[in-house]
Formats: sequence, structure tokens, C-alpha cells
Amino acid sequence: MFDKEFLFGASISGFQFEMGGKIIDPNTDWFKWVHDKYIQESGIVSGHLPEDGPNYWEHYPEVHDLAVKGNFNALRIGIEWSRIFPRETFEAKTLEDMEKLADKQAISHYRGILEDIKSKGMKLMLNLNHFTLPLWLHDPIKVNRYGDFSQSGWLDDRSPVEFAKFAAFIVREFDSLVDYWSTMNEPNVVANLGYFQRESGFPPSIIRPELWRKALENEIKAHNLAYKEMKKFTSKPVGIIYASNWVDGDESREDAMNLLSWYFMDSIRENMDFVGINYYSRIRVVKRNEILEGEGFKITWKTLPGYGFACMPNGTSRSGLPVSDTGWEVYPKGLYEITKAVCERYGKPVYITENGIADGKDSLRPYYLISHLWSIEKLLEEGYDVRGYFHWSLIDNYEWAKGFTMRFGLVHVNYAEKSFTPRPSFLLYSEIIKERTTEKYKEFIKYPHALVE
Amino acid sequence: MFDKEFLFGASISGFQFEMGGKIIDPNTDWFKWVHDKYIQESGIVSGHLPEDGPNYWEHYPEVHDLAVKGNFNALRIGIEWSRIFPRETFEAKTLEDMEKLADKQAISHYRGILEDIKSKGMKLMLNLNHFTLPLWLHDPIKVNRYGDFSQSGWLDDRSPVEFAKFAAFIVREFDSLVDYWSTMNEPNVVANLGYFQRESGFPPSIIRPELWRKALENEIKAHNLAYKEMKKFTSKPVGIIYASNWVDGDESREDAMNLLSWYFMDSIRENMDFVGINYYSRIRVVKRNEILEGEGFKITWKTLPGYGFACMPNGTSRSGLPVSDTGWEVYPKGLYEITKAVCERYGKPVYITENGIADGKDSLRPYYLISHLWSIEKLLEEGYDVRGYFHWSLIDNYEWAKGFTMRFGLVHVNYAEKSFTPRPSFLLYSEIIKERTTEKYKEFIKYPHALVE
Amino acid sequence: MFDKEFLFGASISGFQFEMGGKIIDPNTDWFKWVHDKYIQESGIVSGHLPEDGPNYWEHYPEVHDLAVKGNFNALRIGIEWSRIFPRETFEAKTLEDMEKLADKQAISHYRGILEDIKSKGMKLMLNLNHFTLPLWLHDPIKVNRYGDFSQSGWLDDRSPVEFAKFAAFIVREFDSLVDYWSTMNEPNVVANLGYFQRESGFPPSIIRPELWRKALENEIKAHNLAYKEMKKFTSKPVGIIYASNWVDGDESREDAMNLLSWYFMDSIRENMDFVGINYYSRIRVVKRNEILEGEGFKITWKTLPGYGFACMPNGTSRSGLPVSDTGWEVYPKGLYEITKAVCERYGKPVYITENGIADGKDSLRPYYLISHLWSIEKLLEEGYDVRGYFHWSLIDNYEWAKGFTMRFGLVHVNYAEKSFTPRPSFLLYSEIIKERTTEKYKEFIKYPHALVE
Amino acid sequence: MFDKEFLFGASISGFQFEMGGKIIDPNTDWFKWVHDKYIQESGIVSGHLPEDGPNYWEHYPEVHDLAVKGNFNALRIGIEWSRIFPRETFEAKTLEDMEKLADKQAISHYRGILEDIKSKGMKLMLNLNHFTLPLWLHDPIKVNRYGDFSQSGWLDDRSPVEFAKFAAFIVREFDSLVDYWSTMNEPNVVANLGYFQRESGFPPSIIRPELWRKALENEIKAHNLAYKEMKKFTSKPVGIIYASNWVDGDESREDAMNLLSWYFMDSIRENMDFVGINYYSRIRVVKRNEILEGEGFKITWKTLPGYGFACMPNGTSRSGLPVSDTGWEVYPKGLYEITKAVCERYGKPVYITENGIADGKDSLRPYYLISHLWSIEKLLEEGYDVRGYFHWSLIDNYEWAKGFTMRFGLVHVNYAEKSFTPRPSFLLYSEIIKERTTEKYKEFIKYPHALVE
Repeated sequence: MFDKEFLFGASISGFQFEMGGKIIDPNTDWFKWVHDKYIQESGIVSGHLPEDGPNYWEHYPEVHDLAVKGNFNALRIGIEWSRIFPRETFEAKTLEDMEKLADKQAISHYRGILEDIKSKGMKLMLNLNHFTLPLWLHDPIKVNRYGDFSQSGWLDDRSPVEFAKFAAFIVREFDSLVDYWSTMNEPNVVANLGYFQRESGFPPSIIRPELWRKALENEIKAHNLAYKEMKKFTSKPVGIIYASNWVDGDESREDAMNLLSWYFMDSIRENMDFVGINYYSRIRVVKRNEILEGEGFKITWKTLPGYGFACMPNGTSRSGLPVSDTGWEVYPKGLYEITKAVCERYGKPVYITENGIADGKDSLRPYYLISHLWSIEKLLEEGYDVRGYFHWSLIDNYEWAKGFTMRFGLVHVNYAEKSFTPRPSFLLYSEIIKERTTEKYKEFIKYPHALVE
Repeated sequence: MFDKEFLFGASISGFQFEMGGKIIDPNTDWFKWVHDKYIQESGIVSGHLPEDGPNYWEHYPEVHDLAVKGNFNALRIGIEWSRIFPRETFEAKTLEDMEKLADKQAISHYRGILEDIKSKGMKLMLNLNHFTLPLWLHDPIKVNRYGDFSQSGWLDDRSPVEFAKFAAFIVREFDSLVDYWSTMNEPNVVANLGYFQRESGFPPSIIRPELWRKALENEIKAHNLAYKEMKKFTSKPVGIIYASNWVDGDESREDAMNLLSWYFMDSIRENMDFVGINYYSRIRVVKRNEILEGEGFKITWKTLPGYGFACMPNGTSRSGLPVSDTGWEVYPKGLYEITKAVCERYGKPVYITENGIADGKDSLRPYYLISHLWSIEKLLEEGYDVRGYFHWSLIDNYEWAKGFTMRFGLVHVNYAEKSFTPRPSFLLYSEIIKERTTEKYKEFIKYPHALVE
Repeated sequence: MFDKEFLFGASISGFQFEMGGKIIDPNTDWFKWVHDKYIQESGIVSGHLPEDGPNYWEHYPEVHDLAVKGNFNALRIGIEWSRIFPRETFEAKTLEDMEKLADKQAISHYRGILEDIKSKGMKLMLNLNHFTLPLWLHDPIKVNRYGDFSQSGWLDDRSPVEFAKFAAFIVREFDSLVDYWSTMNEPNVVANLGYFQRESGFPPSIIRPELWRKALENEIKAHNLAYKEMKKFTSKPVGIIYASNWVDGDESREDAMNLLSWYFMDSIRENMDFVGINYYSRIRVVKRNEILEGEGFKITWKTLPGYGFACMPNGTSRSGLPVSDTGWEVYPKGLYEITKAVCERYGKPVYITENGIADGKDSLRPYYLISHLWSIEKLLEEGYDVRGYFHWSLIDNYEWAKGFTMRFGLVHVNYAEKSFTPRPSFLLYSEIIKERTTEKYKEFIKYPHALVE
Repeated sequence: MFDKEFLFGASISGFQFEMGGKIIDPNTDWFKWVHDKYIQESGIVSGHLPEDGPNYWEHYPEVHDLAVKGNFNALRIGIEWSRIFPRETFEAKTLEDMEKLADKQAISHYRGILEDIKSKGMKLMLNLNHFTLPLWLHDPIKVNRYGDFSQSGWLDDRSPVEFAKFAAFIVREFDSLVDYWSTMNEPNVVANLGYFQRESGFPPSIIRPELWRKALENEIKAHNLAYKEMKKFTSKPVGIIYASNWVDGDESREDAMNLLSWYFMDSIRENMDFVGINYYSRIRVVKRNEILEGEGFKITWKTLPGYGFACMPNGTSRSGLPVSDTGWEVYPKGLYEITKAVCERYGKPVYITENGIADGKDSLRPYYLISHLWSIEKLLEEGYDVRGYFHWSLIDNYEWAKGFTMRFGLVHVNYAEKSFTPRPSFLLYSEIIKERTTEKYKEFIKYPHALVE
């Protein structure tokens, strides 16, 4: 049973949703990355372009109406750093200097979005960084193709300060409209996919583990600094949103948990009022014969194919569980376990800030939704302090290097016409929110392969 | 747009739903057929048994509550002839004689079911024969194995009269509780699958086209006679429920339509107040080289594999359309066409009395529902007199020779526990009934492969 | 190691190979069966017709040349009873009476075929009955459709005598050209598929276990009688060709072996000089809850789907083994086991008289061939008295109810042009015959999934 | 019909075949590349290692015996530059200086290999570079990970001279044993996959089209220089082996042919005595909207997925043709077309120096072999000067970044035991070589899906 204070909503980000209308934002690392002809030709990215997206920038009232219709009492959105500061802020010393550099139209437009959410009676979580960096801070083509690190994003030691300046500026600007602040979304993914696991197509897509480590360190500094600056202007909770991996497997799993899930959050534990958990699937590991080791890290495990994120799309995992369009195993137990572990380790309130599935046919999503919500309900019964669930996502959107082929929405988007059609899962989610329990659907929880016996 | 008088409901039959509790009915041809060890061993039937069914006999209040929950304003159910008359009625001359032979407990139990439906505010359509015949009239094992035609069902020339006696008896008994009467369900399927197309496993499963014809003639007589008898006791509309085939293909399609869809209904056109259309998929034909001909029929076409009912389960039809668990192509256009043709040919009110899909995963049903309802909505806009839609079915049930493997329910049945869990489609159907239009989901109508582009 | 006396060849039958040219034989039960329009329409048979076959009747020299090219030292063929005696022989009392009824042209043509084989230096095994019966003895349409048992084949108690008369006649006629005689091919399959397991489409396709038993008894009598008659005219070995099932599973397997494999052969053990084993795949059984029992038989087991003959075509069995186009698991161990058991039980010389695979792509046949031959080689090493191997078959042919879709040939047949093209397996078989060992290919024996690791 | 001078053989290279025993060669770019832990972890390479290979280094007599057994009259092998010169040769001015740096044991061992081929009566084609470069010339990890171009292989302007020195040295050493010399194998693939199409995992795997161009230019210089030096020491024909792409599609195909197939060979046309064509599948292109342009190149087309090299493994191409384990469409027409075009453009003798298929089950290879050989036969009939066919390959081997999963051998390799087992295709190839025509198998040429109709 979810009490009536429990937040039910969905998460939305900037780059993946905003474009699709007249107003485009070409000033991010990702925008340059996905438009680069050689990057496209080499097969690293899909070739789809964010400017063909759902156009949340103009259609936000309609999207918020869908949330209301779905009985949501909360929404999480993001602000694009590059829209507020399209040009570099290195020289700005004060918030007044920042103000001069800020794009007034962008600020005003975002204000409209935030106000609309509040006027529709929903709680608002605002996140300040979701993967993209301003191009003036990070040019991934320079890094990837020419080995030119002059705009190297989180590798640049100036990045923490610049981020903190941006964060403070936004808090001062919008605090009255916001209920929960988050500094950044999945900083670990940015570092990991950018500098180590190349197959995901994340910029700058180079394999140098010491840079992975370096980026991680600057992200930690950035969070800690931003937290302190933000708290000067707000009494609202400030947290972080993290890709909280649940690792199972042999004895090497502990090392993996430490590096993937605990290291970062341990380093900011004093500076977070809540933890946002993003969970999609598990990781299964076994001990590796030859340890990968470098300055500041030691990898003693390897990922087992056929489990968790390492499955064949639309197949069945080695545990016999269904697999999504992205090749991710449906594994609700992992959400239960990681949330419990985070609650116990940090003693902070927890929000599930992302959880969802790429499922164009909407054939697995109903089961995914029920079984993951049921896991939360179980945690609540056991007394864990989980306070909200934001599904990823309300509408289909731009799935980074994979473009528009992966559909995570409760609501289908017709990109050509920018029209929105609820999938059956949307009705199901609305119903569960209304009932505030998965009780009525508990039957399906037993059947891992959705409704088939 | 469906007006508020338009009936939205579901159809339920006797044999497929009632058993599952203590009260079983062993007195039908089908019961003996599916229990026969040799019929089981030879692979003709699944081996599943109706006494493991959903137990509607006892759980009807719960099932009716689900209908109410789903915003239904109508329900169609059936009465089992064999329950009312477990022993032969050949000698009975009057309804008083019939009364003596009737099972009082069965009558009383059915009354309880009917009253519950009415008390929950729904219109009630009552159908008097749904495939099964009393064993005293039809013993399919005798016919199939021993060539003994002494209990040969519709082949027996006494069958029309016996049916009419039963029909009159029931109308006299229950007319005050009923809004729409139907004599029989899909008489054409009973004749066709029993005496011609053996692969369906319908009793008595022998291949003799002249018997197919014979059975059809007695069914026609039975309907006409029953209609007349029933009208003596009721002022409510009396109709028929027919498996209305939509045939497309080359020039031979007309012959096929005549034999499969028009011949029967033309022969009863004076004796029907409405037409009930059951539609699942189409039939595609081409002219055959060698005509099949016999007394009273001439088959000039053959069915094209890869279309309509002749597809591989869970695959894609040759027209690129999705295919259900039973191997039936999703083809909403066929519902539109056959309904239009029936409206124009007979000028009678039409009810869609069955329409649905075997889809254990509930991955095609949402699209199936939307696209077929949309077809009806289009007919209404064009002024055709369609007055109701009964989905097949509200809950999973016993799918004849295929047993419990084929799941047609908007609501999942856990047969072991007799528990009922709404599938996402149930929510979708409820929503459409509430809105009285498919407008909100029209996006999906464009995409034949459900929601995938 | 196979010694140089070991027979390597292939098996050929009448009905499946002979037609395709001008000379057709319409006088068999099977011919009428597969031409019946209602049997075709109901989906029991493929609709393919034997008169579109490979035309062995005229192309035999070319087929025999292929055998020589493939290093064969033996060939098994069959004689069609209906060709020699197109009209009934009930009245004939002596071989002289028989002679008057015999078709001289057919005799002369068969003589040409036999002489050609001998002139090409191959040993000849001649089999006298392969499924088909003369229409005057068996009209399956009468039996199936009208319950008219006046021409009921092996159900007719006159059938054993008629068969023995035919057998004696043929032996007297052709003994000088023949090296090994066989009375009949797979009598158990004729009885089993005709009267019990209906899904195979064998005439007369009715389910009455007591008739199964009856047919079996008459076949036993026919063999015993024929053996005695034949021995009057020949000193060559006379044997039987049997579908020797290898059954594994739980304790019920013994009952199954007794009924399926031992009962028939035990009843003729005094009257066989050798045993011909036809082996394709295994049968896996479990005890059934409710025993099937009738006069003279008791079935205590049921077949497990997913093993042996009960697999999905072109898939993988539940034991992880590859499955052929007919849905038969590749299981060489079964050939080893059944052959060993037959050797030990009867102490007679054994010939593998059929063994092969429907594999249009020739992708499993190489492995099938190697692994089954290796099983024989192992038996030889262990001292078992196996004397020959006849592959089924040299060329593609008419696979009964399945028509031309199932291709069992080492050599591909283009049916339109009656042209013959060796598959790679043909080369492989030729090579093994030349080497007289599978030694060189023993690597592949380890890999059940052909050559893939 | 192939005349008796026509060369039938197979091609073998160094890095992919030699290792597997005690003698490993760690001194190549590829060796370092596939051993790098981060390159392995990122999923760029398979993780398989060449030192687990077939060990041709020690097993060459057995491999050559297989060739003899298969009726081959020719073999193509390669020499590893890094084995002869494990240390840099920049300072060497004369062949005498080179001699001092050369590894005597390696020379002696290669001599043994060459002598064995000659002693077995086969013609020998010797190729001097097959993808791998000595590590002293190319360190791909430095380039990829650290942007350090100090050992950059073909990007280094000293590379042409060093290669020519090596080539001259080898010719002087081995000319008496060699019948045909080739400078390098598929230089275009090295440049293209290394600097442009990253998904193949070729070192150094960076995307910079101007480097692609640069590498190509140095390879051209290297060939031209080497040709001249080699001719000083030999009167045998000296040619090149090229990945001769056949491009079809719209009007942009001409640009693609020019860049991919003609540019390189036009630049060396004066310096080649024959052309070696490597052909596996086609490339299908359409015009691209935005042209990719850079210094010295202009790409006006893009590859169409679903054709040629861009297919799903083991599926069916958009043209309905079968696809191999590597995802390459079986398209024999392309071999015909490219060979014809090369013959006409250059007027030089042509050898098919590679042609084959990754097909672990050996289910497509028979058809692949027949249909491609038939294409050559047709060219011969039309009078084109094609003089030999070397299948890729005689035995399974190390398929670069894909490791041992892709099996191209006519003969299966058990890597654990270093044992060799002929596949059925080996027998087929041997048979065709003996017959010197595909005539007997022409039936299969009609059926693109191997032997299935």
C-alpha cells in the first residue's frame, strides 16, 4: 500500500525531449556528436537527430495534462545548462556576472514550464544536469578524432566550479517553484560509457580507464561543490540521481558493487538530502582471470553475457526472464535489493527516479510496471523510507545513440505529427496510482513472462 | 461515437465457463468427446478437461462484478440444454410434459445467474445453444468410432422439434429477465467442423460433405421452428448468432460467401429480429481447379494459406499483419465489410456478438480491440444500424479441442485458484466504453503491428 | 571398420518412386486415398500426387548408375502387388491360376529392373509389400467415410492367404535374380498409423484400437504364411523389415518396447532368416495416469513431446539435439541400442534396411550419416552380427501424406525435369563406403549439432 | 570447363594460422591489439587469442597433405614480416644490412614450409603482407589510446621503403621456390577498417577519414616500390591481392566503385603482372543526402542495410538470398561482375585469390562453392583470362577481431587437439577439381537457398 503522500510520476530530461519544433539547441556536446558525419557513418550512432524529437519545449502543457490525467502527483524534469549559458562562464566571478551571460528567453521559457507543472498541482523535482554538457566545456569530436583535450568536459578541472556556479544560479532563480533539487543524473554512466565501454556510443567514446577515473573525480567534486552552493539559496532537499547498479554473481560482485554503486555515493554522502535511484536491470558478474588495474581502480570481475543488461533484444535471458527491445532483462528483484541496500547504507530518503522499459509493442511494460511497483510496495511494508516513483518515461523520446528506435513511453509519440497516444500501460499505471496498491494485479507478479503461463 | 444506448459487453457460454467446481455436467456430446481416451491419444483434442474450468457456475457474482467495473451495460450468456434436460424429451408432447423432465435445481440456479445480471443494471442477451448437444441426442463416439448413427445430433430429423420444445420451455420460464433472445450460436461452425474440416477436432470429426449439408438443414429447421415457438411466449427480439465469414480473394469469393455466410441466413431471414455477428478474422480464397461437388453444394474455391484463419500462430500473415496465438490474422477491415454487408442484405438491427483474440501475453489485444471498435464506429457514422458489441470474452475459458492453452479473456483466469486478474486490455476497454469513442487511441489504428512502427 | 562383405546401399520402394512418367498405377489404396478430394480438403494429405514423382519406372538405369558411382554394393527395392495383380486373386487356387491373373507387362518390366541391378554388380534385396495394398483388397474411402468394411485390407481375414499367394508367385518368378527376400516393410506402422494415431494421415485414418490389433494379427499371419510358401521356392534368406522402435523413458518403457518392438517379431521369430531394422529416431515415454486398455493390448505409457519423433521441425529437441524437416530428433544412440537389442533377442543376422533424414538443405544429413554409421561400426567392433546398411534413400521421393515436401535423398530430384543431382552427403557416403570406416570423420561424432561448436 | 592448367587451391595467411604451438610471434600490431585488456573489455575484439590457433607452423605437412588429398594443384601462403624482422630495419641500407637483422630460424622454417609445398607438386603463390605489421612500425594502442603517432604503421612515410626492403629481401631468399608473388593482401581493407568503419574492430580503430586516405597513399607507394625492387630479383609474375568490391545500387555506385575498387589499382596498374581478386559478397549503395567530403575523397553514397556485407547473420537478405555466419549475403553474381570488370579494365591475368564463407554448419558452403565456381566457369567460356581459384580457406582459422567463432574452412579444426576433419564441402570441392567442371551440380545453381525449393 502506498500512502497518499507517496509521489507517483515520471521523469523527463532536456536533450531527449525538448527539441522537435523551431527552437533547437545546438550548443551541447551530444548535439555535435550525433550530427558528425563520420560518427554517423562509422555506425556509432543511429543517425536519428534530436531536432525530430517530441517537442516538449512547445508541447509541455499537453504533456503535463497527460500526467494529470494519469493521476500523477509529481513530475521530474531537467534544465539544459547549454540553454541557460550558451557561452562560456569561466570569467564570471559572481552571480551577477552569470546573470549577464544567461539567456533571458531560455530562463523565461523554463519558468513557464515549471509554473505549468505547479499550477496543475504536482510536486516538482528539478535536475540540473542530464548527460549533456555545453559545447564550450566539452567538444567530443576534438577529443575523439584529434586527441585535442582543450574542451574535455568533466576531464577539465575547471568543470566542478563552473557547474556549481550554474547550479547556484538556477536555484536562486527558480527555488520558489521547486520541491526537490537534484544536481545531476547518472554521473557514473557519463564517465563509464564515455571512457570505457565503447559499444554504447557515448561521447567521446575513447578507451582510457584513467580518464574514466578522472571524469568520475571531477563529477564528485562538482556535486559536492554544487550542493554547498545550492544550499545557500534553498531550504528544499538537494539530492543526486544515480544509476544504482545491482550486481549479483560470485564473490567478485562485492568489488563491482563497491566501484559501480558505492564509491561515488560514499564520496558525497555528507552532501545529499536524498538519493534518487535509477534502476532498469541487473548486472551479473564472475571473477576475471586477469585483473584490470590502473591508477585508482581495480576490476576483478567480468560481466556475464545472457543476464541483466547483456542480453539479446526481445529474447529470453539465461534465467528464463523476458528481455526488452534494448536487450535488458526484466529483473524486478534487483530494484528491491538495490533500494534496500541504499536505504540501509545511507539512511536517507529514497526516490526511484527512473525505472522503465523500451517496449514498442507495450507487451512487457504492464508486467514490468506491476512487478517493479510491487517491489517498492514490499519495501514500504518492511519499513524502508522510499518516498516516490518516477517512471521513465511519460512519453517516447530520443534514446541517445540509439535514437528514436527505443520507445520508453507510457504514451506513444507520433514524431511526424507530435501527437501523443496513451499505451495500455498508461491506463494501468493510472489505475494503480488511483488504487495506491498493486494488489489487484498481484496475480501477474507470479508470472515472469508477463501473462503467459 | 457510440451513443449511450449502444450495448457494450462481453459474451459467455455454458460449456466453456461453467465447470470448475463441484457441479459438473457430463451429459453433453462434447463432455464425452474430450474425455474419450482414444480421441485424446490420437492428438485430436488437447487432453484438458472442462471440469478444470473457471467455475462460472459458482463464481458468477464475481464475474458480473468485473463487468460492472468495466463499465459494461450488457452481457450475453447461454443456457445448457443438457443441464435443463439431462434425459431425452422425445416423448414429451406439451410444456407440462417438459416440465416434468426438467431439472429444477438447474432452472433455479440459472435464474439466480440471470437475476444477478439484471440486478447489476445490465441488459441481458440469452442464447439457447452453443455447440454442445445433450448426449441423449448426440453421441459422437458412436458416430466416429462405430459408424453408429442412432444418436447423431443434428443429423437426426427429430432434432429440430426437440430444440424448439426446449427453446419454448426456456422462454416461458425466463422471459421476464431477458432483453434479447438468441436461438443458437454459430450453427454453421458446428456443421462445418464436425463433418468436413477435420483438423479442428470438433465432434464427430468425420469427413462426409453430405452430412455437413444434412446437419445444416436441420439447424435451419430448428431455428425456424424455435423462433416461431419462442415468439408465442415473448415480445422481446429473437435473433440468431452466426459465424459471419468475410471472404475475399478472386472471383470464387462470391460462391464462398453464398455458401458460408448467406445460405443459412437467407433461409431464416423471415424468422430473425436481429442478427448477431461473430467475427474473428477473414478467409481468403482462390478458385480451385477441380470443383468439389455433392448433393446440394458445390465448392469452387480453396482457402489460401497465410491469410485469415490459415496462418502460423504468433507470426505474420502474408499481408504483413499480426497473427494471434490461434494462428488467426488480425484483420479489422473484415469486421467492417461483413457487418456492412449483413446490414444491407437483411435490413435488421445488428449486434456484434463475438469478437476477440487468443493472446496470452495481451500484446495484440489492445490493438485488436481499438481497431475493431473503430470499424464499428465508422459504420455508425455511415448510418448502419449496429446496436451493440459483445467482446469474446470477459474471462479466459475452455477453448474446445484446444483446451485452456488459448486465452481469449480481457481478464486472466488462474485456473488452479479460480482467481481473476484484469489484463491491461480490460482497462482499455473500460476506458473506451466510458469515453464512448476510440478517438483518443486513433493513432494506433494506423499501425497494424500494434504499436510498433 | 566395415569388412568388404558388408553391404552398403540404399532402399527404394514402389509407390514412392515409380510413378512420374506415362505408366501410372491407380490400383492401390494409397492412390485412391491421396486423390480423394475430401481427404485433400480436410488437410489430412498434402495434395501432392504420386504421378508427379521421380519416375523410377523409366529412369531406373540412371538411378542404378548413381548407386554404382556412389560405391554401393547393394540395393533394396520393392515390387507393387497391385501392379502384378491389378484384379482380385481370391478365386485363384494354384500358381497357375495366379499366372493367368498376373500382368505380364509388369512382370517383364520388373525383371528388367532386377537384371539391371544385378548386371551392375550389386546385391539385391527384394521386398514384397511396402504399405500399399491392391485396391481390390483395401478401399480406405469406403472404410473411412461410409463405415463400409467390405474391402478392409489387413482387417480382412482373407488377406494373409492372398499375400502368401502373391509372395510365392513372385519368388518363383524372380528368385534367380534376388539375394535377400523380405516379406513386408514396417507392418507395425501400417496398423498403428491407420487405426490409432490419426495425425499421420495414413489410410483409413480411423481411431479404433481393436482394429489396430486386428490388422497386426493378420499381418503376422500373412508373414508366417508367406515365409513358408516362399521357402518352397528359394534357398535365399527370407526376412522381415520392421520399424524397430527404440523407446527410452521411465519404467513404462518396457511395456512400450514389448508392444511396439517385440510383440510382432516374437510372433514370427521362427520364420525369419534375418531382421531388417528401419530406424529414424527414438520414442520417449512416461507412465500414463489412466491406462488405455482393450482386447489384447494395454497401453501404460504416453509419448513425451519434445523428444524423438515428437519434436518441432527444424528446431532443437529437449535433449538439445537437432531436429529434421519432419520434426524427428537426430538420435544415433537409438540405432545402436535397438540393433544391439535385436541381435541379442533373436540371434539372427541383422541388416539396417532404412535409416535417413528429411533434410532439404542437406545441412544435418552429413552428421546424421556419420554418427549413425559410426554406431554400426561400434556394434561390429563389439562383435554383433550386422551385415549391411541401406540408407533411406538414394533419391528424393514421395513421402506419403506429406508428399514431396520432405526430401530424404542423398541425391536431389528435380521433379519437373526428372533430373538427379548428388547432394554433398552423397559424396560423403561414397567416401565412407570406399574407406569402409567413419574414422576420418570421427571428429564430427562428438558434435551433436553437426559441425558447430 | 576448367582446363588442366587452371589453378585450384586455397589461401592461407600467417597471423591467422601459424600460432597454436610453442612458437608464438608477439611482434605484430595485431598481437598487441587483441591482447590489450581494455580493448577486450570494451567489446571491440572477441577475447580469443591467436596463440590458440591451428598451429600451421608445426602442422604444415598435414595441412599440405589435405590439399593434395583434395586434388589441389596450387596453394597460396604468406610470410610474416615481423617473424623475419622482429626488430626495426630503418637503419639498414643494403640487403646485407637486412640480412644481419633477419631471424635465421624463421627464414629456415619458412623455407621448410615452401619446400614441402613444392615437393608435393603444387604451384605456390607467396604473399608478403597480410594485414599485420611489425610492432616496431605500428603500435595501435599508442595511436588509439594516447594519440601517440610515433609508431603509426602505414601513416608513417617511412613505411613504403621499409616494406620494399623486406620484399626484396624475401624474393632474393625464396624466389626459386615460388611461382607467383604478391606484395600485399587487401591493403584497402587495412586502411578502411582501421581509420573509418570502426565496427570491425581493426587497429587502430579511430575515425579520421584523412588518415584513411593517408594510409592508402603509403600502401600504394609501398606496392609500387616493392614491385620494382622485387622484379630485380625475379622473373616470376608479381601481382597484388585486392578486396575487389562489387558495388550495385543507384547512380552513386559509380563513385563507390571508383573509390573502393579502381582508385588503388589504377594507381599501380603499371606495376602488376596479375590481379588477385578477393571476393566474398557485394555492397549495395544509394546516394546520400549530405556528401562526406575531405581532402582527396568524396563519399556520395551510403550502404544499404539488408544487402551484401550488411545483413543479419544466418538470416535472409532483402533480395531473399541466404546470409552467412558473418552476416554476408551469398551473391555469386558479384564475383562474375567484378572479375569481368577487372579483366576488361586492366587486361591482366586474374586469379581469384580468396572466396569463401563463414558457415560452421557447412550448410551453405556447398551451394556457395558451386555457384561461385560456376561464375568463373562462365567467364572462362566467355573468354576472360582467369587462371586460378584459391578458396578461403582450407582449414578453419583466426578471423581477426571475431576470433575463432567464424569458421571459413573446407576442413574443420578442433583447436584443442589441433586435429583436422574434412567437411562435406571439402569432398565436393575435390570432386569438382577432379571433374574440372560444376556441370554435375548445375541443378543447385538455380536454387539460391541452397538445395531447398
